[in-house]
Amino acid sequence: MTKTDMKVFEKLESEVRSYCRSFPTVFTKAKGYKMWNEEGKEYIDFFSGAGALNYGHNDPVMKSKLVDYILNDGVTHSLDMATAPKAEFLETFNEVILKPRNLDYKVMFPGPTGTNTVESALKLARKVTGRTDIISFTNGFHGMTIGALSVTGNSFKRKGAGIPLQNVVTMPYDSFVNDDLDTLEYLERFLEDSGSGVAIPAAMILETVQGEGGINAARFEWLQRIESICKRWGILLIVDDVQAGVGRTGTFFSFEKAGIIPDIVCMSKSIGGYGTPLAITLIRPELDIWDPGEHNGTFRGNNHAFITATAALDYWKDETFEKSIQEKSERIYKFLEDIVAKYPEIKGEVRGRGFMVGVASEIEGLASRVSAEAFERGLIMETAGPNDEVFKLFPALTIDESGLEKGFEIIENSLKAVLGTKELVGN
Amino acid sequence: MTKTDMKVFEKLESEVRSYCRSFPTVFTKAKGYKMWNEEGKEYIDFFSGAGALNYGHNDPVMKSKLVDYILNDGVTHSLDMATAPKAEFLETFNEVILKPRNLDYKVMFPGPTGTNTVESALKLARKVTGRTDIISFTNGFHGMTIGALSVTGNSFKRKGAGIPLQNVVTMPYDSFVNDDLDTLEYLERFLEDSGSGVAIPAAMILETVQGEGGINAARFEWLQRIESICKRWGILLIVDDVQAGVGRTGTFFSFEKAGIIPDIVCMSKSIGGYGTPLAITLIRPELDIWDPGEHNGTFRGNNHAFITATAALDYWKDETFEKSIQEKSERIYKFLEDIVAKYPEIKGEVRGRGFMVGVASEIEGLASRVSAEAFERGLIMETAGPNDEVFKLFPALTIDESGLEKGFEIIENSLKAVLGTKELVGN
Amino acid sequence: MTKTDMKVFEKLESEVRSYCRSFPTVFTKAKGYKMWNEEGKEYIDFFSGAGALNYGHNDPVMKSKLVDYILNDGVTHSLDMATAPKAEFLETFNEVILKPRNLDYKVMFPGPTGTNTVESALKLARKVTGRTDIISFTNGFHGMTIGALSVTGNSFKRKGAGIPLQNVVTMPYDSFVNDDLDTLEYLERFLEDSGSGVAIPAAMILETVQGEGGINAARFEWLQRIESICKRWGILLIVDDVQAGVGRTGTFFSFEKAGIIPDIVCMSKSIGGYGTPLAITLIRPELDIWDPGEHNGTFRGNNHAFITATAALDYWKDETFEKSIQEKSERIYKFLEDIVAKYPEIKGEVRGRGFMVGVASEIEGLASRVSAEAFERGLIMETAGPNDEVFKLFPALTIDESGLEKGFEIIENSLKAVLGTKELVGN
Amino acid sequence: MTKTDMKVFEKLESEVRSYCRSFPTVFTKAKGYKMWNEEGKEYIDFFSGAGALNYGHNDPVMKSKLVDYILNDGVTHSLDMATAPKAEFLETFNEVILKPRNLDYKVMFPGPTGTNTVESALKLARKVTGRTDIISFTNGFHGMTIGALSVTGNSFKRKGAGIPLQNVVTMPYDSFVNDDLDTLEYLERFLEDSGSGVAIPAAMILETVQGEGGINAARFEWLQRIESICKRWGILLIVDDVQAGVGRTGTFFSFEKAGIIPDIVCMSKSIGGYGTPLAITLIRPELDIWDPGEHNGTFRGNNHAFITATAALDYWKDETFEKSIQEKSERIYKFLEDIVAKYPEIKGEVRGRGFMVGVASEIEGLASRVSAEAFERGLIMETAGPNDEVFKLFPALTIDESGLEKGFEIIENSLKAVLGTKELVGN
Repeated sequence: MTKTDMKVFEKLESEVRSYCRSFPTVFTKAKGYKMWNEEGKEYIDFFSGAGALNYGHNDPVMKSKLVDYILNDGVTHSLDMATAPKAEFLETFNEVILKPRNLDYKVMFPGPTGTNTVESALKLARKVTGRTDIISFTNGFHGMTIGALSVTGNSFKRKGAGIPLQNVVTMPYDSFVNDDLDTLEYLERFLEDSGSGVAIPAAMILETVQGEGGINAARFEWLQRIESICKRWGILLIVDDVQAGVGRTGTFFSFEKAGIIPDIVCMSKSIGGYGTPLAITLIRPELDIWDPGEHNGTFRGNNHAFITATAALDYWKDETFEKSIQEKSERIYKFLEDIVAKYPEIKGEVRGRGFMVGVASEIEGLASRVSAEAFERGLIMETAGPNDEVFKLFPALTIDESGLEKGFEIIENSLKAVLGTKELVGN
Repeated sequence: MTKTDMKVFEKLESEVRSYCRSFPTVFTKAKGYKMWNEEGKEYIDFFSGAGALNYGHNDPVMKSKLVDYILNDGVTHSLDMATAPKAEFLETFNEVILKPRNLDYKVMFPGPTGTNTVESALKLARKVTGRTDIISFTNGFHGMTIGALSVTGNSFKRKGAGIPLQNVVTMPYDSFVNDDLDTLEYLERFLEDSGSGVAIPAAMILETVQGEGGINAARFEWLQRIESICKRWGILLIVDDVQAGVGRTGTFFSFEKAGIIPDIVCMSKSIGGYGTPLAITLIRPELDIWDPGEHNGTFRGNNHAFITATAALDYWKDETFEKSIQEKSERIYKFLEDIVAKYPEIKGEVRGRGFMVGVASEIEGLASRVSAEAFERGLIMETAGPNDEVFKLFPALTIDESGLEKGFEIIENSLKAVLGTKELVGN
Repeated sequence: MTKTDMKVFEKLESEVRSYCRSFPTVFTKAKGYKMWNEEGKEYIDFFSGAGALNYGHNDPVMKSKLVDYILNDGVTHSLDMATAPKAEFLETFNEVILKPRNLDYKVMFPGPTGTNTVESALKLARKVTGRTDIISFTNGFHGMTIGALSVTGNSFKRKGAGIPLQNVVTMPYDSFVNDDLDTLEYLERFLEDSGSGVAIPAAMILETVQGEGGINAARFEWLQRIESICKRWGILLIVDDVQAGVGRTGTFFSFEKAGIIPDIVCMSKSIGGYGTPLAITLIRPELDIWDPGEHNGTFRGNNHAFITATAALDYWKDETFEKSIQEKSERIYKFLEDIVAKYPEIKGEVRGRGFMVGVASEIEGLASRVSAEAFERGLIMETAGPNDEVFKLFPALTIDESGLEKGFEIIENSLKAVLGTKELVGN
Repeated sequence: MTKTDMKVFEKLESEVRSYCRSFPTVFTKAKGYKMWNEEGKEYIDFFSGAGALNYGHNDPVMKSKLVDYILNDGVTHSLDMATAPKAEFLETFNEVILKPRNLDYKVMFPGPTGTNTVESALKLARKVTGRTDIISFTNGFHGMTIGALSVTGNSFKRKGAGIPLQNVVTMPYDSFVNDDLDTLEYLERFLEDSGSGVAIPAAMILETVQGEGGINAARFEWLQRIESICKRWGILLIVDDVQAGVGRTGTFFSFEKAGIIPDIVCMSKSIGGYGTPLAITLIRPELDIWDPGEHNGTFRGNNHAFITATAALDYWKDETFEKSIQEKSERIYKFLEDIVAKYPEIKGEVRGRGFMVGVASEIEGLASRVSAEAFERGLIMETAGPNDEVFKLFPALTIDESGLEKGFEIIENSLKAVLGTKELVGN
């Protein structure tokens, strides 16, 4: 293989490209929590495809099953026709995930992207209730197509729509104003006062931990009150588990520990297991009033992804995997708390839950500089938040102790390097 | 492998499923223009994933490259980071497709679905022009997310939105009113009269041959006048080549023979080659004013699809493939014309271009019945049009003579069977 | 009275003022078809408050009744409480106008402006049908508030909204494309084709003769077909008779001769008789499903206007007035036809019906120059059309022969003056 | 005069009528703070045309000037042509109102209704800033046309639109959640956080005391902080003084005592003085970037209203009138406080400022029953608030001591009567 010139992308790919600017090298190989570039340089991946690679890169069991399937000329693309891998996925998902959690959902395949599952959820909520408005939350992120973008908070992304985004009311997420202020008291006043200008919406849509919005974890009691408000007013509750789901926060669904049961759940990213495109929308059976074909899409029947997704569910057949996530996540959390304590000058705050954590710093530009330094040192790590004020740790859930430690070391060294060269200016 | 019960889908999958209702069997294997169900029954595929499988199922060259890539632990999922397969795709696409056609486009990867490329095109057109409205055309189909659905004509799909769809004006497609009426005279009056209520739009979006809308092929001169109207008024021209592109109408891009050059081209379906999810948005370089990350998506870097997409471009390295499509398509067209002549009672009209053809019948329900009969006889064939009045032939472009003849025979037999049992009632 | 400096307006009034720029003098007195400025200069009024003064200025009978009412301390302002003048207006309107025409309408008082009656009509149509879209027509003009502006064609006015105007589809008015092309064939195709992107709307709204849009008179058969299309599809027909009503086209309602019966009729301008603000919305009784107070407004009970409006209905107690309008309007029409024939260089076309007529000229700027010249010579006359290409004759319906002749003379002299000084450039 | 049958209205007027249901009698005469019905029964008017009759009914000075003007054939209707009464109004308004208050505004005449001035203000704010969104406040009321209705909180009125209302974000008015909670902290978080989903708006629109919304008076410091937030973010501040203006709260403009200077002020109702339809939009000169005719309307030149409006300004030539309002308003406030103290079972709260006050009761239906009882006893008094939970005292500012006392007596007696017959159920 000859070396690829990064200029290829500059010359031929649209200006919209972004991660290849933060991580400017050409990757060729990946395995578990590691990636390699063309020159063979190794990187520790604390990014994991923004949550699409919870099982790491190229898991050997999934890989083997996928290759077998392809070699046997299994159906690759089937729209929403019936195939054996789809049946197997449906049954396994039901047996391994839904039943043990006492959940009863119909599975919809809406096209293999996060934005598509969100769009399908919003449509269905509007159809079921006959209402038009959706309540979304500050710093929520749900996708880039117009319906999903309407419920996304980020102003830069919203402006990209080029049209006013409608039929949505944004309410304050947990701790939005400050940690003491009860944001749900506001929300309820808006609902109960018939002069508030806010109509009872079709649905509320939220992430239990906000990823792009800055690794904000809603408290369980806040989520529980949201659920009870929804019930009281006949509002559907949609949990967007695209990023926080599939174990990222410590349990398969991010909402399990809060003890709530959403009406609709949106999943994508790691549901395919191997980085293979797949999305599902889970629907309480009573709400599944779609007419056939009312929502569709060409790649909703991606059998390669069914194969890997089914294989991935093996991780959930007993509690071993879940326990290991929770144990390791304590280690990660402790590392971050130590960092914040040790370097008070970064004015840091640890945020998040499980393997979805980060440090917000009041020092402008610090998170981006730490991330850039880390990349130089062989670690891939993203920033998040409205002002990129958070550096975000998203290792594969399958990472081992040694991988974590190496990553931590790079992060701390990067932070030191940044602190050594920069006059810090707090916000 | 044990037999799958079709009830699995009834029980676990959402009511929104559709094709598995028309083609009620469980498929397991596929090769070229053939599919097999669990019992080993063979089907001739005149459906081709609604245009996502122009190269047939599981092309051996692509398969081999894909398996090699996977076995070597090539990066599977990379968001929009730089990878070797992406670079190779970009360069090959430029060398094999763009340069020989004197086309100069930047390539954007917007998320691997048709609706996503359309959404990205509409956003960019609005950003470039600062205008909000889009002109779309009657019976156009562009996708199921709110932005793309807004420019889609089908009323059943539009109602599925649950909200009024905005910022769009629908104009009559070629021959919409009748064959004699010049629909562009209308369109131009609306643009030139400042009291028409129709503002100069950001863009026009159209398919050169409408797939879902009923296999309506716009005349080349109509397309040429559209292009010149767009130029005159500073309106961007977006061609949605998701279904009609990648050879389906006889040339790689569906607009080549019309001699027009769109400002933005939307591609998906067969661009991935193997049924692997991929979409691209082609953008005239001057218009590529995206800010980094202004539109994004998790699966825009699906390297499996880059591998197969690059391999698929081999078909276009010389003119052999293109010629063979055109020759075979004449054969298909002749068959349909013969059918229409031989069975005048179906009040049929042949429609379409290249491998994107069908017969519209004024007899209510006829197309659906022929399609159902054909499935019984081992042929997969879809219907199209606002009232499903068209049966639609979409074979793989790689199909051989024998495959075509077998398909034709089944279609004619199916038609005879329908005619033998049904009192025909014309509209 | 001291002389008023026109600079008062420049200094204190908003830049939005317009007619005081075309007719730059300070008016103080008015009677019948004449106005006088501060210096006592007399003007013939061929403008009539844009149709708000169909009975001329300060009609002596209405004046006397109004003064008596005021002197007796009759209730001036009553919101929508019950007052004697309102009862009298309702009864007289029913006896004199509705019953003899076999019309059965409930009367709504929506606030005393044209835009307000239109907004009330659109709301009610949406409520009755449960649909959101309205079909309006090219060059229609219905008002300046967001709801009414949405169904108005003029692009300059629409841009003034500052937001995209929604929930409306504009269809071509009679003869919009050219005189031969049947615009309703086009409209019907959109309604009957379920893939057209145009949903069955709540209502169509139209003027039978478009005023601001350029004095375009729809043919009676076109209006009849509109009515039958509305019936066929269950679409409500709203006639906006704000400008064309109250005798302006020769009959009380502009739609009488076409023999159609709208579901809702919007009236304002001359309905108050004396230039006193009043508007009414006429509603077929079955459609009057408003909840109390669902639409309201402070000045909907303007008793001064009830007094003058009731008095004005005396004109309609027998056929004398109607006949006189029709006779005089023939005289006006003949004058315009003669002008167009005599001065072929203006490339003129006579447009309109009854006392709502004008000459459209292909010569850019001609209409405005004629109007300006006429003002110098003591005649007030407006222009209309998307490019102000029409000069518009709107005399009081009560004008006498001598007034008409004086006006004609000034118009012809003004035209001659313009022709003498200007190199004509046709479009 | 023969007696009018109330059935006239039932038979001929639309179901939308409302006040004639609460006050079911036919009024014929009015003077000062009194009205009389056909039978000569006298009513004390504590309603004052919902604030359109601040100077009482048929003020003798205005009446005399109006009659003189009519008798002299002064121009009645003039669109926006220049007339002597308009010039006189502009100059007097400038001399008597603006200059002494150090205010510099251009005056726009937008059509003579409150909703029309609001629509003009919103359009201009969008034009000036190039932004689309408006921030409105809970329980704000701004009018019934789509633009004004979009910024109105009442859900019953909003539903009347029949379409989703867009381009608006509702924020909590002062004390919306409870008296301790700082609603502006919340508002500012939304503005400062770029991920909040709330874009910087074109304008904020508010009433300093909310009328229809339940007589909620914002604290002066709240208004001051609103002004400073607007300045900080470059947001225009629109005060809707349609109901609270013209002395109703004790000063000519309702915002004077707060010491704020809005960018745009909306006025209507009492600005015409005599109940004659008039509205004005006051615009900071730098913002007056309207193009001529960009907003218009038939009755914006209602000269009868200019005559009475100018005469009405005499009240403001020195401080006598203002002082008398403030003195009397203390008397009213004291009466209400006494009532609330004396009848604790009504769980009442006194609300409002100046002559714009009322009592909110937690007892469901109490306010409506008191109002109905009062009408029986000869007092006209309205209810307000999202659940009609407030009875509202809106006497003419010109009322004398004796009028007030008679009104108070009726109110207390009505309250006693209600309390005597009703089992009270608190919310």
